[in-house]
Amino acid sequence: MKTSILHDPKWSIDSLSALRAACTALPGVDAAAQQQIADREAELTKPAGSLGRLEELTRWLGGWQKRAQPQLERVQILIFAGNHGVVRQGVSPWPQDVTSQMVQNFETGGAAINQLARVADARLRVVPVHDLASTADFTTAPAMTEAAFLEAVQTGYDAVPRACDLLCLGEMGIGNTTAASALAAALFGGAGADWAGRGTGLDAPGVAHKARVIDAALAFHKAEMAATQGAAEAVAGFDPLEIARRLGGYELAALLGATLAARHYGIPVLLDGFVCTAAVAPLARLAAGGLDHTRLSHCSAEAGHARLAEKLGLVPLLDLGLRLGEASGAALAVPLLRAAVACHNGMATFAQAAVSGRT
Amino acid sequence: MKTSILHDPKWSIDSLSALRAACTALPGVDAAAQQQIADREAELTKPAGSLGRLEELTRWLGGWQKRAQPQLERVQILIFAGNHGVVRQGVSPWPQDVTSQMVQNFETGGAAINQLARVADARLRVVPVHDLASTADFTTAPAMTEAAFLEAVQTGYDAVPRACDLLCLGEMGIGNTTAASALAAALFGGAGADWAGRGTGLDAPGVAHKARVIDAALAFHKAEMAATQGAAEAVAGFDPLEIARRLGGYELAALLGATLAARHYGIPVLLDGFVCTAAVAPLARLAAGGLDHTRLSHCSAEAGHARLAEKLGLVPLLDLGLRLGEASGAALAVPLLRAAVACHNGMATFAQAAVSGRT
Repeated sequence: MKTSILHDPKWSIDSLSALRAACTALPGVDAAAQQQIADREAELTKPAGSLGRLEELTRWLGGWQKRAQPQLERVQILIFAGNHGVVRQGVSPWPQDVTSQMVQNFETGGAAINQLARVADARLRVVPVHDLASTADFTTAPAMTEAAFLEAVQTGYDAVPRACDLLCLGEMGIGNTTAASALAAALFGGAGADWAGRGTGLDAPGVAHKARVIDAALAFHKAEMAATQGAAEAVAGFDPLEIARRLGGYELAALLGATLAARHYGIPVLLDGFVCTAAVAPLARLAAGGLDHTRLSHCSAEAGHARLAEKLGLVPLLDLGLRLGEASGAALAVPLLRAAVACHNGMATFAQAAVSGRT
Repeated sequence: MKTSILHDPKWSIDSLSALRAACTALPGVDAAAQQQIADREAELTKPAGSLGRLEELTRWLGGWQKRAQPQLERVQILIFAGNHGVVRQGVSPWPQDVTSQMVQNFETGGAAINQLARVADARLRVVPVHDLASTADFTTAPAMTEAAFLEAVQTGYDAVPRACDLLCLGEMGIGNTTAASALAAALFGGAGADWAGRGTGLDAPGVAHKARVIDAALAFHKAEMAATQGAAEAVAGFDPLEIARRLGGYELAALLGATLAARHYGIPVLLDGFVCTAAVAPLARLAAGGLDHTRLSHCSAEAGHARLAEKLGLVPLLDLGLRLGEASGAALAVPLLRAAVACHNGMATFAQAAVSGRT
């Protein structure tokens, strides 16, 4: 096993317990910066509160950036790609080769996210995790060894640039909505049918089969984990990181690592769709407020996403029926944040503009 | 009365009946361009339909622009400003001077819309209608004479540049949510309480008073119109343009004119909030599909907006609790359209990217 060190030497994730420690000792928000932002907001030439969620977004950005004037000069989109052993169970209508083909498409600029990154004025980087090697089929084994899981987390952590004002996260991986559904079910309860959706385009029998595959995986790991721990607890009672290792995937682990790094560095994060949200959900289960530095960019058309968002208390910024992944929703929400920041930093105050107040 | 001629000489709106004719003989969408767009969309490197509403927006833009490759080079924001006699009834917590002060703020770049226009990469023009003269108090008289109403419509019509890929509409006018509420109630039924909201920040007693003012106006005009026409019809049975003249406002009339011009010129329109939507609602009452060339940018926090959108069958693109007006929601939605167009025009096809199809 690679004994790698996180950027910040105090976090060394060479074991699940070390990772758990890193996930539970989290820096908080800069309340003073947020108060300064609220004070200025009240002076700007508009009725109080009339910019709605844009005002909250400005405070959120500034609070995590630790700046009374939040900025969005350096917006980074990171896409993590990975492959999934569970595709052997026939859970996707697309061949597994599409993962690497789409990575190539990202590199040559032909995918949706390339166009969306340009509109968002953001940098795009694609990270194939573990060189797109496949995880194990998690219906019969843990998806990842502990070492491979931790290395994937590390890959995500290390991919986050420290000099960054906003991080947009996304993923690509044939079969990964099955992993995300299994992970969500294990973390929040419910059966396969509660979390399985159409993914990249399954028909109704395909979704029903996917749900059965998820149920099989849940049963297998519940029995295995209970045996290991000598207890007959529900899977939901187990360690969220162990669940992520058993039922997740490499790109999901990397998403978790990147979100953790962003918290340590003070970088606000825009989450993307169902897979991305499921991947980082363990952080919310490990620590109250573990996702406070994130906002959910959109609600996906993928069946489980609205349910998962509600479980996590995340209110999406957009709801446009997207179900593409690859950070598309996150990129799409960037201009909303640019708008919020532009209004806050650029507007005149009532005094500056000589506009009368309320009578 | 000024007997002005519209840009297009076949539309001469020197009478309500001429305007009505212009509102009912409307050009349709380019179905061939829309088919070409749908055909290309199916070839792009993503699961079919996975870009959700973005795909529909591309077809909508292309269909009205009559282009198989829609473009957004020239995005124009128009804000119409006007004053309202009904403010004498104490329906706003802000003095009427704020209308002209905010027009000045728009001109000097200090308002929210100036910042949002920059983010949207759009041109901004502010048009004070009738030099910000006040309409009559519509609780005791028609808000506008026929001549002044038609001239305001003409002002809006003439403000639309022919060379424009997208028009974003907004307004500014102290008291204008009262006018919009009265207009909506007269067009779609219901009492003042069904449509009155907080506007720029009324408290609950203020909203209740506003509702009573609207009820008084509805009762006055219902009686007057019934007397004129010798019938005891509900106000909703009357001519939508006559309702707009009696209960609307100058900037609302201009918004109607601008939306009509955009239809004649083949320019897609992004509507803003409650006032903007109410202002153009007569076009939907005059002709089926009269607002097909528009999309609703957002759902405002103003109480009546969601109800009005539903009556008109408009599904908002954003729902961020905005209640500012001044085209803020419309400008905020522009990047979504840019994203839709960028994806459609810029993405690789499966063949180009050598990505495998479904198995």
